[in-house]
Amino acid sequence: MDLINVGILGYGNLGRSVEIAVKQSKDMTLTGVYTRRNPLDVQPIFDDTKVFSAEKLEIPQSIDVLILCGGSSADLPWQTPKYVQHYNVIDSYDHHAMIPKHFAAVDQVATAANHVALISCGWDPGLFSLVRYLLTAILPEESVYTFWGKGISQGHSDAIRRIDGVADARQYTIPLESAVNHIMNGEKPHLDAKEMHKRECYVVAEEQADFKRIEAEIKAMPDYFDGYDTFVYFVSQNELNQQHSSFPHGGTIIMAGATGLEQEECVMASFQLKLESNPAFTAKIMTAYARAVYQLSKEAQFGCKTIYDIPISYLNLERFREL
Amino acid sequence: MDLINVGILGYGNLGRSVEIAVKQSKDMTLTGVYTRRNPLDVQPIFDDTKVFSAEKLEIPQSIDVLILCGGSSADLPWQTPKYVQHYNVIDSYDHHAMIPKHFAAVDQVATAANHVALISCGWDPGLFSLVRYLLTAILPEESVYTFWGKGISQGHSDAIRRIDGVADARQYTIPLESAVNHIMNGEKPHLDAKEMHKRECYVVAEEQADFKRIEAEIKAMPDYFDGYDTFVYFVSQNELNQQHSSFPHGGTIIMAGATGLEQEECVMASFQLKLESNPAFTAKIMTAYARAVYQLSKEAQFGCKTIYDIPISYLNLERFREL
Repeated sequence: MDLINVGILGYGNLGRSVEIAVKQSKDMTLTGVYTRRNPLDVQPIFDDTKVFSAEKLEIPQSIDVLILCGGSSADLPWQTPKYVQHYNVIDSYDHHAMIPKHFAAVDQVATAANHVALISCGWDPGLFSLVRYLLTAILPEESVYTFWGKGISQGHSDAIRRIDGVADARQYTIPLESAVNHIMNGEKPHLDAKEMHKRECYVVAEEQADFKRIEAEIKAMPDYFDGYDTFVYFVSQNELNQQHSSFPHGGTIIMAGATGLEQEECVMASFQLKLESNPAFTAKIMTAYARAVYQLSKEAQFGCKTIYDIPISYLNLERFREL
Repeated sequence: MDLINVGILGYGNLGRSVEIAVKQSKDMTLTGVYTRRNPLDVQPIFDDTKVFSAEKLEIPQSIDVLILCGGSSADLPWQTPKYVQHYNVIDSYDHHAMIPKHFAAVDQVATAANHVALISCGWDPGLFSLVRYLLTAILPEESVYTFWGKGISQGHSDAIRRIDGVADARQYTIPLESAVNHIMNGEKPHLDAKEMHKRECYVVAEEQADFKRIEAEIKAMPDYFDGYDTFVYFVSQNELNQQHSSFPHGGTIIMAGATGLEQEECVMASFQLKLESNPAFTAKIMTAYARAVYQLSKEAQFGCKTIYDIPISYLNLERFREL
């Protein structure tokens, strides 16, 4: 079998989960973990995983697909366009409002460099996008509602941690029960994400930091918190570690629609995920789609892609004709 | 806008629903309904729908996509290969075990004729196949369970109606609650479809028909009933019309899996449909995918396809970049 050589850039929670997912894939081999830290300070999960400096990626490595495990706020906007110059890449860029801009930046470089990039490939954006698109294409006149949580949002936690004076943070996204009930009852309220969720932030401040300024900066952050019911709680690092150390998440897509000449027949469609580890499931999705990126690259279908552009037959299950 | 010319072959419940779905699509125009009955005996839902003899399809019609609305047992195995000689076609062939054979027969003709065929495009096979494939590709070591019903299976009802001595019939597929509970409790039992469902058949027999032979023929039908707990009830046409005239259906896909180094973190994924009209929702899916067939044909991507082979961007929603 032709093994797929996979590299990992960035070794946080997502990077560690991708290491496990690649090791669990018999058709892949892990070239190495590439880190901006001192490689000697990084302890991989598997003894035989090689850890290199990210600088080593400047010299062409034997990597068929490089899985980018950085954050959406500070890393991916420059990392994905940079590394697609030299490698086929996948990222899980999750800043919904900025995806078209990210796509354009990555597509330009990918196309010129004859590489494949797959962006925003997680469960949302990603699997949920796929189900939303499909349901909307089938019943275009209907609304699809997305609820996230209760769960830790890595993107939002990450965004808080980048605020000056913040030592650590975890953010929970929580569906508003009243909104869920309205939709389940077959009503079709006009709701945006801000009317469907609240956000709870557990923040560890640095010594002598200005709590009020941090809270205000969080609540005003556009796209992430602005407009949401946001609750900020300052806690000690100990409490954060003890009470908020795991990464559960999940979500539900609901379409309450109708068919028929007079829209007289109800359709209820839902897709639900309950995850004890958000990064582990995201890593599994990215690793599965690495097969598709590899295949697209072999077929010279270069450029930037999203999950909408790739037939799922490219995920290369052996049982591909068993519908 | 470049309108898509759609034709409908076969005018039963599915054909009528496709007529509505095409009329509800602003980017499509309905060339006509083609029937094997006397066109004068067919009353379409819309006054301006033209009804023609199926024989007219032998002379090339201005049809971009012909939606085949015949049954999987007696019609589609010969209709899909026949009509793909002259048109791009979609069917909802639902005889799971026979799909590879149907695919091969259709692909050969479609490829030679430079046409596109999309087969088995409904909600199962179809949407459910897509979700099962995706979840299995992400967590290949896990089992995905599919429950159907409670609902009328058109394919199974159709199969019963073709038995000698049967005047009419409706078949309900019903999940076995004990099986659902096992899986929801996180157990991973080895179950096939026969251990997860029972089948209830309401049958109107012709006068002087042999009830025992009919019941035995139903229960022995391979793939459809053989091996299932099958219950056959003989009723009058009146009772069938009054108690069993609508076409509800639905189903649930459940994956109870795990991620992590030691499979220590639970993943629960589910996709559920509750439909008051099975043919109406199937018609909406086929009509949405007619856009994809049209697009594939414009790009000269000829041959037989399944829902696995088509990027959902081909469903051509305007908001295609909004993940």
